[in-house]
Amino acid sequence: MSRRIIILTQGHTEPHAGKTAASVIRYRGQDVVALLDATQAGKTSGELLGAGNVPIVASLDDCPEANTLLLGIAPPGGKIPAPWRAIILDAIQRRKMDVISGLHDFVSDDPEFAAAAKTAGVTIQDVRKNTEKTIARRQGLSPDCLRVHTVGHDCSIGKMVVSIEITNGLKSRGLDAKFIATGQTGIMVEGDGLPIDCVVADFVSGAAEKLILQNQHHQIVLVEGQGSLVHPSYSGVTLGLLHGCAPHALVLCYEIGRDRVTGVESVVIPPLAEIKRIYEVMSNVHQPCKIVGIGINSRRVSAADAAAERARVKAEFGLPACDVFRDGPDELVDAVQAFYESGEWKQR
Amino acid sequence: MSRRIIILTQGHTEPHAGKTAASVIRYRGQDVVALLDATQAGKTSGELLGAGNVPIVASLDDCPEANTLLLGIAPPGGKIPAPWRAIILDAIQRRKMDVISGLHDFVSDDPEFAAAAKTAGVTIQDVRKNTEKTIARRQGLSPDCLRVHTVGHDCSIGKMVVSIEITNGLKSRGLDAKFIATGQTGIMVEGDGLPIDCVVADFVSGAAEKLILQNQHHQIVLVEGQGSLVHPSYSGVTLGLLHGCAPHALVLCYEIGRDRVTGVESVVIPPLAEIKRIYEVMSNVHQPCKIVGIGINSRRVSAADAAAERARVKAEFGLPACDVFRDGPDELVDAVQAFYESGEWKQR
Repeated sequence: MSRRIIILTQGHTEPHAGKTAASVIRYRGQDVVALLDATQAGKTSGELLGAGNVPIVASLDDCPEANTLLLGIAPPGGKIPAPWRAIILDAIQRRKMDVISGLHDFVSDDPEFAAAAKTAGVTIQDVRKNTEKTIARRQGLSPDCLRVHTVGHDCSIGKMVVSIEITNGLKSRGLDAKFIATGQTGIMVEGDGLPIDCVVADFVSGAAEKLILQNQHHQIVLVEGQGSLVHPSYSGVTLGLLHGCAPHALVLCYEIGRDRVTGVESVVIPPLAEIKRIYEVMSNVHQPCKIVGIGINSRRVSAADAAAERARVKAEFGLPACDVFRDGPDELVDAVQAFYESGEWKQR
Repeated sequence: MSRRIIILTQGHTEPHAGKTAASVIRYRGQDVVALLDATQAGKTSGELLGAGNVPIVASLDDCPEANTLLLGIAPPGGKIPAPWRAIILDAIQRRKMDVISGLHDFVSDDPEFAAAAKTAGVTIQDVRKNTEKTIARRQGLSPDCLRVHTVGHDCSIGKMVVSIEITNGLKSRGLDAKFIATGQTGIMVEGDGLPIDCVVADFVSGAAEKLILQNQHHQIVLVEGQGSLVHPSYSGVTLGLLHGCAPHALVLCYEIGRDRVTGVESVVIPPLAEIKRIYEVMSNVHQPCKIVGIGINSRRVSAADAAAERARVKAEFGLPACDVFRDGPDELVDAVQAFYESGEWKQR
């Protein structure tokens, strides 16, 4: 069955809360027929999310051809917004739509949704649901696959997008690159991966290592980062993933103007130089690892300010740096390709 | 009902695998009637585990008064050893004993054990089972409670023991100290706490913060550390706990002669000075944090070698250092008490 997806963003159709919606539209747009948000009906995804040109509709009935409802937000804590319950139930019961969700609150564990889905004969796919119980062993890592990992100064700043754009850039140059999804949105886009933040803590590194072992027949893997080593809520996820995927190279991502930790606004994000030092310390514990470039998210500033900041960062760190949307990803693709072809990482 | 516990260590009655057994005997010995290990019957816990003087028996029937079977090991991955299944079933079905387990494999989720327990009317307590879904917010931390956290260069090197011994030492001096258990054995000993390594990764820091918020009416809390920032399998647990409990002070624990990562023996543990630097970097991301002492585990070396190493470490780092068993915990208790009374941490 081909997916014809309505993405539910009711009341949350803006770039931060709607990052799942934006990325599914951007990278899997051929399957998306509409966004559902009665408060924004008549507008488009391009206007509100800066991604694609998908119409925003007020009701499921505006899209009779749709067969799948995808919950398009990723709020902290991952709970289902209360006003969404009636919409989800209606999609299941009356429209016989499948449901895809990346929330921590599993839709398929909710007795009312589960019973309705059973009666309607539809499936509920909770992308974050997993039973991972693999312990990282540091065995069997291929010496021929370059492992690149995106990391950041905060959560929700574009690590997934940078990973995908670099992967696509490498592929367009004929290299065999693979995007390794570690979060719910990446998994929805790529069709495989593991929801690292939803694995039981003892098995986070093991899950990351498993993803590497499954994909190291590629020349280069780009492992999507999660959270931040300086995020007081999620740093454990970040480090477990970092040590589990054992990268040879990092791409450091940050957003211009982001100075407070998302969700913990009392905490100031350290300067980028300090962030860089922290990642260098922690990524080099077990093997050499090099920061090969910087991904800039400049969505909140003007083109002129973005260009100035890009020049400043390149000068400060002596590294390639770009906003993969505004500037295109070439400079980071160049950096990864050059590092791969140098073979320097093979001696490590 | 008072607990009369048989600790099951069948085939694993040695200090490393049997650390759960040893600690329950050491700190909750009044409730323990025997160890069950048919391969070691006739010996005692003191001979094989270096803890207490509990007899080792060959059969449940050697202890007709026992009403609880406690699974006394904590293997990597936390699986139930296959030969134990018959013993556990017999305890439940024939002897109507309750079961306490700290394994990752939940006894109560096993259909055969669950059905047997229901029929027999006994309870299965899986200490690691939890439904924690709290996100760390860094709000409401008391300025009057000193938060001390034990960290280490590897797992299973005595962080829990150092935490308990310092807590008991502070209490004996009239200070209101509380041991905060974060692992299955600590929870069995203390009767409360949360199994941090078994929380879903996104909520590890939140669980640690919750433990602080629940206990900060005490003057000093001693938070049991988990894993190690340089353990490639468990470093995420370690960092999530470290950032979640937001310590003012650390006690750095290590074992003399331990130079390979437990369970990942291909990985060399960095020198203690490097370990110290890594903890200083990561514990100071959000607020000042000071390493106030060093806990030495000297079980594998002679008294003379232990004394020499203790002197060497004290000189190298200029910090109080002791083996809480061999030397007694006073030097570390002194250090924590002095830091508490200095008030220095309140200005931080």
